[in-house]
Amino acid sequence: MRVVIALGGNALLKRGEPMTAAAQRGNVKIAAQALAPVALAHQLVLSHGNGPQVGLLALQAAAYQDVEPYPLDVLGAQTEGMIGYMIEQELGNLLPVEVPFATILTMIEVDPADPAFQNPTKFVGPVYSQLEAQQIATAKGWVFKQDGDKWRRVVPSPRPKTIFEIRPIKWLLDKGTIVICAGGGGIPTMFNPDASLSGVEAVIDKDLAGSLLAQELQADMFVMATDVAGVYVDWGKPTARLLRRVTPAELRAGNFPAGSMGPKVEAACEFVEKTGRRAAIGALADIEAIVAGEAGTIVEPV
Amino acid sequence: MRVVIALGGNALLKRGEPMTAAAQRGNVKIAAQALAPVALAHQLVLSHGNGPQVGLLALQAAAYQDVEPYPLDVLGAQTEGMIGYMIEQELGNLLPVEVPFATILTMIEVDPADPAFQNPTKFVGPVYSQLEAQQIATAKGWVFKQDGDKWRRVVPSPRPKTIFEIRPIKWLLDKGTIVICAGGGGIPTMFNPDASLSGVEAVIDKDLAGSLLAQELQADMFVMATDVAGVYVDWGKPTARLLRRVTPAELRAGNFPAGSMGPKVEAACEFVEKTGRRAAIGALADIEAIVAGEAGTIVEPV
Repeated sequence: MRVVIALGGNALLKRGEPMTAAAQRGNVKIAAQALAPVALAHQLVLSHGNGPQVGLLALQAAAYQDVEPYPLDVLGAQTEGMIGYMIEQELGNLLPVEVPFATILTMIEVDPADPAFQNPTKFVGPVYSQLEAQQIATAKGWVFKQDGDKWRRVVPSPRPKTIFEIRPIKWLLDKGTIVICAGGGGIPTMFNPDASLSGVEAVIDKDLAGSLLAQELQADMFVMATDVAGVYVDWGKPTARLLRRVTPAELRAGNFPAGSMGPKVEAACEFVEKTGRRAAIGALADIEAIVAGEAGTIVEPV
Repeated sequence: MRVVIALGGNALLKRGEPMTAAAQRGNVKIAAQALAPVALAHQLVLSHGNGPQVGLLALQAAAYQDVEPYPLDVLGAQTEGMIGYMIEQELGNLLPVEVPFATILTMIEVDPADPAFQNPTKFVGPVYSQLEAQQIATAKGWVFKQDGDKWRRVVPSPRPKTIFEIRPIKWLLDKGTIVICAGGGGIPTMFNPDASLSGVEAVIDKDLAGSLLAQELQADMFVMATDVAGVYVDWGKPTARLLRRVTPAELRAGNFPAGSMGPKVEAACEFVEKTGRRAAIGALADIEAIVAGEAGTIVEPV
């Protein structure tokens, strides 16, 4: 089976945990332990989030006054290198040395006409006071929104259209390579009027990017690994119940809120509807059972 | 022809230039203009330096006190993503959109018994006063050496032994992909006694890494692109003369100093001696003519 697994950013660096390299590597080791049996049994493609990591790079860049912080597309490229490196090394340490690995820098096309550009919603980088936020907004043209009692930059989250490196990714999979790609949802890029390509200050949802990746690779299964056992109805209430096997229509009827389970549900439904194959949402610790269809929320065609 | 080109770190971010993203991208565009005709005519593999970029990341990390700076192997992985992204995008903008590209994260094995570990020589990161340097040396076990009237961290520069991702790189080349890899000399890694792999706080010389890459890929030519026209005898004297065609033995007789032309000469000689094929050292602006054998210093077997 060809399996695409999207690892949540918080699977690699947990909320509230110090953002040290050691903490990050520790979490990657735990993820690698869970993933190793899947890598041995199946053709494996891994993507991953990068929210906490981009946050750290933005904080470091803001603290060093001599050079203007680099734009988000470049920070995203940095995190693809950093996180891909740790995953490749730690998962590699659990597999026979002959298993080939490749971490591929991934650019994903977005549409300049995507409505997301009219309504930035994705928080990135440090928090500021209202006054600081206003000053930076004036100086740089950034958009800020309130986040608790502080202010944070928001950027658009457009939908992924095309994965530029999809052919190399396919060629490597066909050779049995474990491929790590589309980290952080891929680097958002768009065509300019002169047909050249530029990076965009935006963040593509990593689950939607993973879904597109799985579709284009004709994966047999697309799995989103997170820190909960799956999709619950009545989450947080005494009546909470884990959905085990659902169709896209049943799942869409649940009206899961944007920001938490919403994008995962959308990414799963889209994969199943477009391919007629299975998607799953569940806990990273259960990943082997999820791929076997024995844990998590399995989304399958009617 | 299969051609491996190693781009100097200063070809991408010049000494004394502000280390902004815009400056870096501007230099990458200039490099891409020079490289495009070679990419159209030959099978192209690009590697690149990362000295100024790692320097910037180290400065930013040092400025943000809340999280301990990440180790050098992780910073190296970040720069492979960042620089690879810019090269892939800017060179891609000058080539037909059908040309496949892949930027591959690259780990290179070094030998724990390499004598370089007994004698760290490579400056990395910010400069410090003597007192600061002594404090950090005590706290972190880093080694410092004097650099002008300030102090800087030095790390070992071991020789590259094996390129872990060499098979994926070959497979992609065989499909006509332009591959960007082994950035910054590759991420130095070594086997632990338990056979697991770990990153190392070291810097592999990018020209020696490029030479190994070219050898393992059985490249027809290995070119080091820098900011001078080639190797000169009597450099800086009125008798200065560009070497046009030389054998490894003639070149080695020149006794070029470590740190400037020395590693390039060594990397070129090693490639020619081991493969019987040609290496070259010359200016990035002349790269098309160098590949044609019409500019730069061409090192060829007897």
